[in-house]
Amino acid sequence: MEKSRATLDKCQTILGGGCLESLKVQMKAEIREKAVLCRFEDSESVDAEEILSGRKIWALLKGELHLIMRDEEGRTIVLQKILPENSGFTLPALCLDSHEYSIEVVCVGETELYYIPEQLSARMYSECADVRKWQEQCYVKAFTKLLELINDLSFLSLKERLRKKLYEYCDQYRTDTVLVTHENLADELATSREVVSRLLKKMEAEKIIKIKRKSIQVLGWKGAGYSEKVSRMAV
Amino acid sequence: MEKSRATLDKCQTILGGGCLESLKVQMKAEIREKAVLCRFEDSESVDAEEILSGRKIWALLKGELHLIMRDEEGRTIVLQKILPENSGFTLPALCLDSHEYSIEVVCVGETELYYIPEQLSARMYSECADVRKWQEQCYVKAFTKLLELINDLSFLSLKERLRKKLYEYCDQYRTDTVLVTHENLADELATSREVVSRLLKKMEAEKIIKIKRKSIQVLGWKGAGYSEKVSRMAV
Repeated sequence: MEKSRATLDKCQTILGGGCLESLKVQMKAEIREKAVLCRFEDSESVDAEEILSGRKIWALLKGELHLIMRDEEGRTIVLQKILPENSGFTLPALCLDSHEYSIEVVCVGETELYYIPEQLSARMYSECADVRKWQEQCYVKAFTKLLELINDLSFLSLKERLRKKLYEYCDQYRTDTVLVTHENLADELATSREVVSRLLKKMEAEKIIKIKRKSIQVLGWKGAGYSEKVSRMAV
Repeated sequence: MEKSRATLDKCQTILGGGCLESLKVQMKAEIREKAVLCRFEDSESVDAEEILSGRKIWALLKGELHLIMRDEEGRTIVLQKILPENSGFTLPALCLDSHEYSIEVVCVGETELYYIPEQLSARMYSECADVRKWQEQCYVKAFTKLLELINDLSFLSLKERLRKKLYEYCDQYRTDTVLVTHENLADELATSREVVSRLLKKMEAEKIIKIKRKSIQVLGWKGAGYSEKVSRMAV
């Protein structure tokens, strides 16, 4: 990780929609002075406690952050992928601790984020109702994502979850050809590579996908936003 | 549902730990005047939007509220059981809406709660840092519970989840003999009665439980708090 100064201009994107407008001039000057820009390499780990805890106001400028839950035996599931366009994700610090699982944040691709230091963030929360409103919206996004995941884990088959995941990849990269290994998919879905490979073969036989050497072509993908539309269709 | 006036005395339990102390005298008088006490029958539904949305500060005095997620096909999973001792649960309003699932709140036993009306709650949030801190703690509890559920759904077998559920019943009612139908257990765990019955028979053969006419005796339960201790033990 590499740190440097961030500009207020970049900070503006954090709270979006002119929310910073209502801050006092004094506080804007402080943000300009104190905001920190962090650069991470691909696959680098980010301190979850430090970034996600909500104690620091932060935003993602580039790359991806994957929020991963890992159990004692090392199995993993991706809770959330944070992209610059859905940035502003935050969880209360205390819920990151558990004796049952750990939560990790891993960068995908070269990743840039910046944050406002803890003390200044705390003052922004306490002095500015708009910043509190923004935090509330962050929580809404976080809760919504977790509830959707609970829905999927409870009511969808693994095959349906896998198909949904493939559509999400297509949507994210705006292509029907997904560059992802069976291992990656298994780690995202809390299952094994063998199970993923078996299900993919089944889906290929059903002409839902076409397995290529290093990628998967998703035949059923019908353009951006398609994953949401079909997430509940039976496979 | 039956509504009446609540006393400030009862309201005090909402925020716990003397948090109301820091409110202005004027606001305390308003709470005394405006807080509403609601009584519900067993199995009665509570408006999730109205109660859980965080727009009203509320507390449970008696009974249980079960937070249930239901998918389009009517299958259900219990997200959270709210008891008077872990009261103060709240979710942001917006995440209760989804095209994939609905969230319902159902009373178990005669249930009493009271709330502070929306406008007054909003003022309490905005004027009092302690009330905001309390709300943050509510979110921590909610996130923690959802993350634990995601962990269980991802990494435990249905048999392990069923066993954990039985231990939780024992802990809650402080008895090794649980009065619950196979149907109820199925509805709590997003599965079918048949599957629950089969798993219970298997657990009986393994001497983990003893199935009785209208109850289940949990042989392995070792007193209060046991469910937490063993939640990660393999069955």
